[in-house]
Amino acid sequence: MIYFDNSATTRPSPLVIQSVKDCLGDDMFGNPGSLHKLGVKADNAYRAAVSRTAELLGAAGNEIIFTSCATESANTAVNGYMSRNRRSGRTVISTRTEHKATLECLAKLEQSGANVVYVSVGSDGKPDLAEIEKILGMGDCALMCFTLVNNETGSILPIDDIVAIKRRVSPGTAIYLDCVQALGKININLHMTGVDMCSFSGHKIHSLKGVGVLYVRNGCRIDPYILGGGQQSGMRSGTQSLLLAESFKVALEEACDTMEQSYKTVSSINLYLREELRKRGCRILSPDDALPYVLNVAFDSFESETMLHSLEIYDIYVSTVSACSSKAKKVSYVLLECGVDRKTAANAVRLSFSRYNTLDEAEEFISRVDEIYSRFLVRH
Amino acid sequence: MIYFDNSATTRPSPLVIQSVKDCLGDDMFGNPGSLHKLGVKADNAYRAAVSRTAELLGAAGNEIIFTSCATESANTAVNGYMSRNRRSGRTVISTRTEHKATLECLAKLEQSGANVVYVSVGSDGKPDLAEIEKILGMGDCALMCFTLVNNETGSILPIDDIVAIKRRVSPGTAIYLDCVQALGKININLHMTGVDMCSFSGHKIHSLKGVGVLYVRNGCRIDPYILGGGQQSGMRSGTQSLLLAESFKVALEEACDTMEQSYKTVSSINLYLREELRKRGCRILSPDDALPYVLNVAFDSFESETMLHSLEIYDIYVSTVSACSSKAKKVSYVLLECGVDRKTAANAVRLSFSRYNTLDEAEEFISRVDEIYSRFLVRH
Repeated sequence: MIYFDNSATTRPSPLVIQSVKDCLGDDMFGNPGSLHKLGVKADNAYRAAVSRTAELLGAAGNEIIFTSCATESANTAVNGYMSRNRRSGRTVISTRTEHKATLECLAKLEQSGANVVYVSVGSDGKPDLAEIEKILGMGDCALMCFTLVNNETGSILPIDDIVAIKRRVSPGTAIYLDCVQALGKININLHMTGVDMCSFSGHKIHSLKGVGVLYVRNGCRIDPYILGGGQQSGMRSGTQSLLLAESFKVALEEACDTMEQSYKTVSSINLYLREELRKRGCRILSPDDALPYVLNVAFDSFESETMLHSLEIYDIYVSTVSACSSKAKKVSYVLLECGVDRKTAANAVRLSFSRYNTLDEAEEFISRVDEIYSRFLVRH
Repeated sequence: MIYFDNSATTRPSPLVIQSVKDCLGDDMFGNPGSLHKLGVKADNAYRAAVSRTAELLGAAGNEIIFTSCATESANTAVNGYMSRNRRSGRTVISTRTEHKATLECLAKLEQSGANVVYVSVGSDGKPDLAEIEKILGMGDCALMCFTLVNNETGSILPIDDIVAIKRRVSPGTAIYLDCVQALGKININLHMTGVDMCSFSGHKIHSLKGVGVLYVRNGCRIDPYILGGGQQSGMRSGTQSLLLAESFKVALEEACDTMEQSYKTVSSINLYLREELRKRGCRILSPDDALPYVLNVAFDSFESETMLHSLEIYDIYVSTVSACSSKAKKVSYVLLECGVDRKTAANAVRLSFSRYNTLDEAEEFISRVDEIYSRFLVRH
């Protein structure tokens, strides 16, 4: 199997699997809210997972909230910030290339009277900084919502520039950053970024589906979104799952430990594929300076889904658009927004890599693409 | 270990552990949203888990939504119903003995202008039906929120009577039912109950923490709470976890298969403990007709937490109040609401059972209680 769909989800790593099995042990099932030893044991282990996760992200323990997924993190950040900070303004700045988790929350905010301004992005996927500065300058901007690494193109946000503009023009505006595709791939030190809230997902870094993280900077106040027993300092009610928190922590530790080597391997895979695919007349849709973990490419004469299924025959897995919208529409709204024409976008395939991929796999991928084209040419 | 704290959380069953391990297999990690074989495989297995869960609950597949926990289910039901059905009225009927997941949502609704009427409950924990009828008769009642089995006393709601009153007086009013402590313990046929929305939790029935279910009857419309990629027919966005859904389904299957035998065993444990504890001057706080899985008892001369820690020395685990509020306050608001005086409530201990408990354990429990009292009497 050649799995080039790691931006959709990843295979749990052996260490994650082991940690899950450990957490299924006889005395590991306590409710962290219980006062007896079983509860205290679970609570201590849970707190340790929170602390270690915070440490790996350059945050304080009380800034890390475990959630059920990055989508919940995004909902909590966007809604929680806007409902808590009603006097900070009713304008939100974002782009139309965000993940649906952000876009749908923004659409709901608009229905309730918020003024959401979607700044345009260039062909490199980066938002127009002059536009951002202009809107920030008008005042009334409570929040900006961006993505550190776009899930469909790998485009990297110039977050330092955006933070600098914000500090200069509108220091009171908060920043929410979707860090799902950046996590474990580039070094993230949350206290250094200057952002206020970030979302992360476990299953994109070889952990399990069902666990995410929300970072909320100390000093940034948000309303909790899921209310109840007041777990996690009231920020996210619901019985905490030690198993899921551990699986996140273990995956993040591994990703951080292997980050440098993994980046090198994936860069060589990406470079090789870009060259070979260009030779074959494909159009590379990821910007040149994209994160190498994502490579979006339009295959000549093949619609996205046809290529996906052609590759699948060889046990090679890629995606058309994001898995979160693949069943909803045929053409990527992200690519269209970046100025890619509809015909090219209809041929787009996303290859996304992990530290488990190899250059050998990339070579096999290319030879399979050649086979697919030869069969196609015979038929036409 | 004698674990009498099953209302707080339960140990994952061997079959659940096996299903988790199976779901960690090589080709089981696909994103159900992906178009390729790995995605289709995950999606098919996920849909099968939904269907089977629905079948076991007497519901249709499209009425079952997997969530991250019962707390999320409650938030989705209460907020989703009220925001979607604004013309149904602004009054909500409930009691002050609900779980915090409901109470906190209701408190937020009140802040936004809803009129929440908390009807009184009797010493048996049952809400005053005449009061309910009176308020329903005034019109304007959009929603009623109750609990089928109270988590602290085991008190069973007369749901059939409430549904009958509603149908007679105010058929347009919807009913949300917290079924967390009833699941797997009494037969639940959702289509027969006449309720509109129900919440369920996995970790109370020997599944994992991190998975819950929300039932929404076909014809009952609610807004989704967590927005994003539109998974689960748009009702709950976020990548679905096959592992968590499977673990819920397997646990529910087991609970249903063993329900009758388990009820008998637990009833005999409960009966034995009631008798023995009464002989020792303890006051039974659970009503006589409570579900036998929960037994709330006030120990003479011992504050709740002292008894909890005294038992813990013998590797016996019980709880004071609900684990979701055990760290927040000392005395159960549920017991106070049922008319228990503060001094008695301060001595309350909740014993809660599962199919894994035995009469032998109950006997050992009683002999340990005797030891604790003898040591206490020597000291005093």
